[in-house]
Amino acid sequence: MSEFEFIARLQRRFDAHARSCKHAPVLGIGDDAAVLDIPNGSQVVVTTDTLVSAVHFFADDQPADIAAKALAASLSDLAAMGAEPAWFFLAVSLPQADLAWWDDFATGLLGMAQVGAIQLAGGDTTRGPLSITITAMGLVEEGKALRRDGARPGDLVVVSGQPGLAALALQQIQAGESAASEAEQALKRPQPRLTLGRVLIGQASACVDVSDGLMADLGHILKASECAAEIRLEQLARPAAMSGLDDATAWNLQLAGGDDYELCFTLPQQLEQGLSELQQKSGVALHVIGSIVAGSGVKLLRNDGQEFILNRSSYEHFSAKFP
Amino acid sequence: MSEFEFIARLQRRFDAHARSCKHAPVLGIGDDAAVLDIPNGSQVVVTTDTLVSAVHFFADDQPADIAAKALAASLSDLAAMGAEPAWFFLAVSLPQADLAWWDDFATGLLGMAQVGAIQLAGGDTTRGPLSITITAMGLVEEGKALRRDGARPGDLVVVSGQPGLAALALQQIQAGESAASEAEQALKRPQPRLTLGRVLIGQASACVDVSDGLMADLGHILKASECAAEIRLEQLARPAAMSGLDDATAWNLQLAGGDDYELCFTLPQQLEQGLSELQQKSGVALHVIGSIVAGSGVKLLRNDGQEFILNRSSYEHFSAKFP
Repeated sequence: MSEFEFIARLQRRFDAHARSCKHAPVLGIGDDAAVLDIPNGSQVVVTTDTLVSAVHFFADDQPADIAAKALAASLSDLAAMGAEPAWFFLAVSLPQADLAWWDDFATGLLGMAQVGAIQLAGGDTTRGPLSITITAMGLVEEGKALRRDGARPGDLVVVSGQPGLAALALQQIQAGESAASEAEQALKRPQPRLTLGRVLIGQASACVDVSDGLMADLGHILKASECAAEIRLEQLARPAAMSGLDDATAWNLQLAGGDDYELCFTLPQQLEQGLSELQQKSGVALHVIGSIVAGSGVKLLRNDGQEFILNRSSYEHFSAKFP
Repeated sequence: MSEFEFIARLQRRFDAHARSCKHAPVLGIGDDAAVLDIPNGSQVVVTTDTLVSAVHFFADDQPADIAAKALAASLSDLAAMGAEPAWFFLAVSLPQADLAWWDDFATGLLGMAQVGAIQLAGGDTTRGPLSITITAMGLVEEGKALRRDGARPGDLVVVSGQPGLAALALQQIQAGESAASEAEQALKRPQPRLTLGRVLIGQASACVDVSDGLMADLGHILKASECAAEIRLEQLARPAAMSGLDDATAWNLQLAGGDDYELCFTLPQQLEQGLSELQQKSGVALHVIGSIVAGSGVKLLRNDGQEFILNRSSYEHFSAKFP
């Protein structure tokens, strides 16, 4: 089984899907490189992400789950920019030619490609420790991409869905418990908030996806926008799967846990009345959890006015840290 | 040392170079994704390649060499399409946070980025077995990309430089010998034929880079173009470092050895008189090694008219094969 056969096998699985996508490559798999036409008035949005076995996923995870998550992570980056997904490039290292593994992987990949209406436009497979790198490309109206640097004091801080579920599942699995199904779904089959990203164009002043943890990612907005935030902890929607946890444990999971792939964005206060429409259009619950203020850093406030201190020494994603 | 610090450290090294490049990203490193402006009349050319330790390079190779080769391989794919390099995205897995390794890697990467006038526009670093994936993007005049499928009977088959040197070095190193310096250079510091690719636009009927071996890559052209080739073996330029080898050994290295990153292209016969000008403009020796004929497959002919049979069971790159 050669490199070429692996890619050809994958490509066949994508044939029907590719025909249903909007932006057919001028030249796709099967040359030295792909050739792509960019519609006038669009800019290209590009993101690269690597998932490594035993770092970002468990070595015995289902190949379909691994594939779906790898592509979802890339789609989530496109969502955070407000981009419409168009093409992706897949690089996979595999220890051996395991066709059953590959076919299950292809199933998960195709499923998520259908969710994102994104086409496979190129790939590389090689022998090596299990690892997946996806480079995804999207299109966005010129000058309209959602960035990190546009938040201003007075803006509302909004988050989609219920961050923290993936971290809860990870904690449960690592403790040898079985994860709550809602949490396991969030960890293994995250859903990129693509529709939300698109409807935030022209609305949100800044946006980021919550892949490194809510505080870390909100921190990226604050740093880029040179401002601070006050978060009202009780306004964070607590998932049912966390109902048995005390406040501190739940908040730590929700604020510092990574891998959520929700969007966190800032919204100029005068657009607050449009929130329910945004929620309706995007099909995902949106929660105002605080506001942008002048200064730097994040203040976490309880309803009683007391400040809460996160007990994690770092907000960084567990996998991003080098030992 | 975090993911963010690694990328930031790399970015600082690229600052001056980035300012000297033509196509500044609208938004580069430091957001969820890069945003790129595509000039009117240009198409985007995209290629993804992974290099894995102990598969594509030796684990104790100099980090600068590894980086330069990884980027050269991607630039070579852009060259084979006739594209002008613009941006690249880097994904690196590293077993531990080794700053000396990283800084040497950055030096090699920057050097090759300067060769290609290509900018770093995004990246991802993660803990994991040593592996580098580069996605490179270039620009090409609309409809002008060099493809694999345009060769026609009567066209000349042309190859740049002296393929086989990288395979010679690999063979020498694997035999415990020291590699000839010219060969070692070809293996560890391949030079992408970017200028050649650009001048072939509107000239070559098909083009491919010789990364998998001359026969394998010419085979890609033949398959895509639905035709055959006759190669005159004595017209292959034999490197000085192969002077001690018998014909069969040398031809096997030159025809089946991978990792060369020369360009192999087909040229309509009526353009033959322009070859010396192409050679002059591109600054690399060009050798007509045969011609395209009707049919399928490759016939390897000696001057005495006898056919030569390659003794490798497969033309595929050693690293592309799964066990």
